[in-house]
Amino acid sequence: MTERYAFIEHAADERLDDIRDLNRSDRRPDLPGGKGLVIAEGPLVVSRLVESRFPLRLIAGFRNKLDAYDEAYGLPGDVPIYELERPTLAEVAGFDMHRGLVAAADRAPARSPEDVLDNARTVCVLEGVGDHENIGALFRNAAGLGVDAVLFGNGCADPLFRRSVRVSMGHVLRTPFATLPGTYTTWQRSLDLLKDRGFRLISLTPAGDETLADALAGADKVALLFGAEGPGLTEHAMKATDHRAAIPMAEGTDSLNIATSAAVAFYERLRSSHPYA
Amino acid sequence: MTERYAFIEHAADERLDDIRDLNRSDRRPDLPGGKGLVIAEGPLVVSRLVESRFPLRLIAGFRNKLDAYDEAYGLPGDVPIYELERPTLAEVAGFDMHRGLVAAADRAPARSPEDVLDNARTVCVLEGVGDHENIGALFRNAAGLGVDAVLFGNGCADPLFRRSVRVSMGHVLRTPFATLPGTYTTWQRSLDLLKDRGFRLISLTPAGDETLADALAGADKVALLFGAEGPGLTEHAMKATDHRAAIPMAEGTDSLNIATSAAVAFYERLRSSHPYA
Repeated sequence: MTERYAFIEHAADERLDDIRDLNRSDRRPDLPGGKGLVIAEGPLVVSRLVESRFPLRLIAGFRNKLDAYDEAYGLPGDVPIYELERPTLAEVAGFDMHRGLVAAADRAPARSPEDVLDNARTVCVLEGVGDHENIGALFRNAAGLGVDAVLFGNGCADPLFRRSVRVSMGHVLRTPFATLPGTYTTWQRSLDLLKDRGFRLISLTPAGDETLADALAGADKVALLFGAEGPGLTEHAMKATDHRAAIPMAEGTDSLNIATSAAVAFYERLRSSHPYA
Repeated sequence: MTERYAFIEHAADERLDDIRDLNRSDRRPDLPGGKGLVIAEGPLVVSRLVESRFPLRLIAGFRNKLDAYDEAYGLPGDVPIYELERPTLAEVAGFDMHRGLVAAADRAPARSPEDVLDNARTVCVLEGVGDHENIGALFRNAAGLGVDAVLFGNGCADPLFRRSVRVSMGHVLRTPFATLPGTYTTWQRSLDLLKDRGFRLISLTPAGDETLADALAGADKVALLFGAEGPGLTEHAMKATDHRAAIPMAEGTDSLNIATSAAVAFYERLRSSHPYA
């Protein structure tokens, strides 16, 4: 009887380097400046990595988790599958990975903004959103509510950081994204790319002078712009857009979390552009 | 010159017991079975605890954080204010509390469902939502989007757990909530309380047979029911409601996070009940 998986006994084994020290800020494998890998954890997200354009390098996990994955999704045949025991995986990863299943892939080449805008009707543009968890949650909401692409303006966190991948439930591996070139004060010029393609640009801001519903009315292609919770969009960015829209809020409360605001805006877009409403 | 704060040098000092071992599952002070305190961290949430109906016991923090709080909100005069150095607070709390400001209060008596329904027009009812972070995020969204009260059906997490308080940004201390009595199979009968008061009951479920907008149309008082992500509402619960509504989702995606779904539903309610739309 042949073994289905290559069993690795020792955490020091070099074959595990792609998933080593996942929490070490100095040498974690998902840093763009380092190995720049994409790490997926748990069966659903691993399956989305396997199906993605990111070239898979390995899958590793506990035997029962590998078996369960194989039954649910089918293990790919063309990459190493490593079986580890729980203490070994904990030692390699640097924490107890109770989900017991992890995969690593190379980064795929970055897409161009032009590329991701092709055939897109609803896109989201972010400025200064530096929190990995918010980026992940935003991708999850974008995917669920029919957003075609995400564009990053200046100052955004890496969507392929392990935490973003996890919180997004793997949707950062599916929803196209690209970075708009430029600095804090110049990236906004790249928004011409969207204007040239007929997108209506809508800034979301608590100080907006119209409702989201009004700003969206009758639009074919739409770009929804969001800044970070707190500072919001820069005036530079808002000046480059056609509308400033607000989500109605109860008095005496704070603004919503950025990913939640985005979900509300995506919903309004879906609602107003769809036979649904 | 008198000192404004009582300086405490040693972590073992009994005056700090209310904020001791904040992460210890066996003896953390916010367990209902134990001391049952409410813990607030950071200036905004501390200020909301101070303003709340929960009887304040103490405020503790670094000197500069106490000064900043005093300038922004004014320190209350009727409870002890303890000044600690960072290592002392870390030792007491059990982790490095970089925000450097914490407050503790007693639990106020639980409110009755009848009480929180008084004057309410929009309420949220939860079943089986056991995640403290989701409960906190839901309260934040409820407060921001004009929900008057939250009712807990069977199987929900404690909204006054430290993590819920933090994630809610203190809104669990402001938005009224109550628990509907009963077990897994009987709590739904308590929904009669809402029906008797003229609430329209709407279950949110991906299998809903109408849109949220249709389910809400023309309603005066509305109760929106949500189950946990994954299992959703029980059939028992849904049978006790008047409508089953779905949020439109893109194909091949997962349902949204419960707090995010709730935000979308709250927004639709605000949109359809308000001069706004």
